[in-house]
Amino acid sequence: MAHDVRILTEADLRHALSLDLPLIDAVEQGFASLARGGVVMPPVLSMALEEMNAEVDVKTAYVPGFDDFALKVSPGFFNNPAKGLPSLNGLMILLSAETGLVRAVFLDNGYLTDLRTAAAGAVAARHLAPEVTTAGIFGTGVQARLQARAAHLVRPFQRCLVWGRDAGQAAACARDIAAATGAACRACDDPAEVVQQSQLVVTTTPATEPILQREWLHPGLHITAMGSDQAGKTEIAAAALAAADLYVCDRVSQCVLMGELRAARAQGLMPDEPPELGEIIIGTAPARRDAQQVTICDLTGTGVQDTAIAAFAMARIGTAGTRITA
Amino acid sequence: MAHDVRILTEADLRHALSLDLPLIDAVEQGFASLARGGVVMPPVLSMALEEMNAEVDVKTAYVPGFDDFALKVSPGFFNNPAKGLPSLNGLMILLSAETGLVRAVFLDNGYLTDLRTAAAGAVAARHLAPEVTTAGIFGTGVQARLQARAAHLVRPFQRCLVWGRDAGQAAACARDIAAATGAACRACDDPAEVVQQSQLVVTTTPATEPILQREWLHPGLHITAMGSDQAGKTEIAAAALAAADLYVCDRVSQCVLMGELRAARAQGLMPDEPPELGEIIIGTAPARRDAQQVTICDLTGTGVQDTAIAAFAMARIGTAGTRITA
Repeated sequence: MAHDVRILTEADLRHALSLDLPLIDAVEQGFASLARGGVVMPPVLSMALEEMNAEVDVKTAYVPGFDDFALKVSPGFFNNPAKGLPSLNGLMILLSAETGLVRAVFLDNGYLTDLRTAAAGAVAARHLAPEVTTAGIFGTGVQARLQARAAHLVRPFQRCLVWGRDAGQAAACARDIAAATGAACRACDDPAEVVQQSQLVVTTTPATEPILQREWLHPGLHITAMGSDQAGKTEIAAAALAAADLYVCDRVSQCVLMGELRAARAQGLMPDEPPELGEIIIGTAPARRDAQQVTICDLTGTGVQDTAIAAFAMARIGTAGTRITA
Repeated sequence: MAHDVRILTEADLRHALSLDLPLIDAVEQGFASLARGGVVMPPVLSMALEEMNAEVDVKTAYVPGFDDFALKVSPGFFNNPAKGLPSLNGLMILLSAETGLVRAVFLDNGYLTDLRTAAAGAVAARHLAPEVTTAGIFGTGVQARLQARAAHLVRPFQRCLVWGRDAGQAAACARDIAAATGAACRACDDPAEVVQQSQLVVTTTPATEPILQREWLHPGLHITAMGSDQAGKTEIAAAALAAADLYVCDRVSQCVLMGELRAARAQGLMPDEPPELGEIIIGTAPARRDAQQVTICDLTGTGVQDTAIAAFAMARIGTAGTRITA
């Protein structure tokens, strides 16, 4: 039976959607639904193409209360930059939760993923960070910029320090964050100093050895670690994770495989079941107790965020895109 | 970086592709590549939505020698017929194996899956069946018709017997097969007689209890079992599987989870590692030895078939479809 499928491009989506509070709220609702139960979120399908220095991940989640569910295909082809192409691209598909019919294809080249990943950082900061005058960012890529902008929407910091392995990139990133947020931003070549000065630190690197050390923790600090999304990655020393007053996962079953929790467990630390971000949101797990606590949130990226952002995009997109009768 | 994505509908694909020998050859090449090694085919991502009486399967395979690889999303929403919609639909995506960029989206509602599934039956018959004067078909759905047509292309039988639980449906199916193949076809209400009279039997039912019994096997018989593609399904008695001279899987790792092999292993039978269809094709495993043997091929459906059919579709499609700059 013929039905209409909407095809939306990255340009359509950039025109209709940007990182704002309603978008952050939509992703927050996704996490809340995850905690309320009834969500069906299978393990990530991950295909490594070693010959190509590439990897393809597929995520999906059915979320009760949403009319549709998203399925996302994220290829990472790490030889692409040498060809003048971005490493990451891909698309998202929206299917009816009633009939399974394809409702939309988002040829977004990863734009919706960028947005929902940044939004998750804002959700973590909203529910876990203390008052923030200075924010610290590790990393200098797209997510470094977006995480700073997202955090600023929920914790309007006055200052921002950026650390990266490349000083020039860190300076460029600091300039971009200053332009986007109005905060006083600068690059800082000492990651310890970034943490020391900040009440909120977001780590956005692909590090495979921990950068952020236990000794750098101080009272009144929240850290969101969003760089590690694969078994080989880690940004936070396991001892730091264990020393925090509160450690929170986006999804425990994922963090144990590909988040900071994996490395900590491998060292015999963090044996207890941590709470999930959604449980903090709906109040079934305790949040930060006081301004002095050290909290850490481990984000690996969930299919629930994809379903939430895709539904939000459909609601915002109006009549844009191409209709195909399939 | 903007790139062109081709959007093709079921109508485009029905116009350009039908079940013919070049299409069967293309799927055969996929199986051959699987046997030659280097194929990356992750386990099927399967999401059961019990609340909806639905299931979503995702398959993909990277096949060396193909410029692109397919990823297929197959939703099965089994309450759809009551709403006047087909249970099965879905889409296929073609991605560049060099860059991961999306090259095409096939909004095919499962048409390519129908073709590649039928083609696999023809490949099995070509390499395993003896001479066939009478073909037997269990089941009366789309695949019953397509499997008969596909088999006729490689084993041009003169007669065809169709068994199904509903006599009217079986008669309609027999009429359609007669019209498509020119063979003398009739419905038969005794599945044992169908097997007795046939040299090639294709089982295409969603049975959850075995239909085809060990006592019905006779010299000079090939059976292709393609109905079982999930853990709960089985069409062939485990004792029949064990009694065959040769049992072949499309992919052992899948048959053991969702094919006939699963039920047999659960009964402690078939402990040895069976050969795969691709190994028969490239000659690294022995095929039928003589006209008297009983052979069985267990087809669960592989991502390799999807990549092969999608590549074939792109080669055949000409300038059809809609180009979207993403």
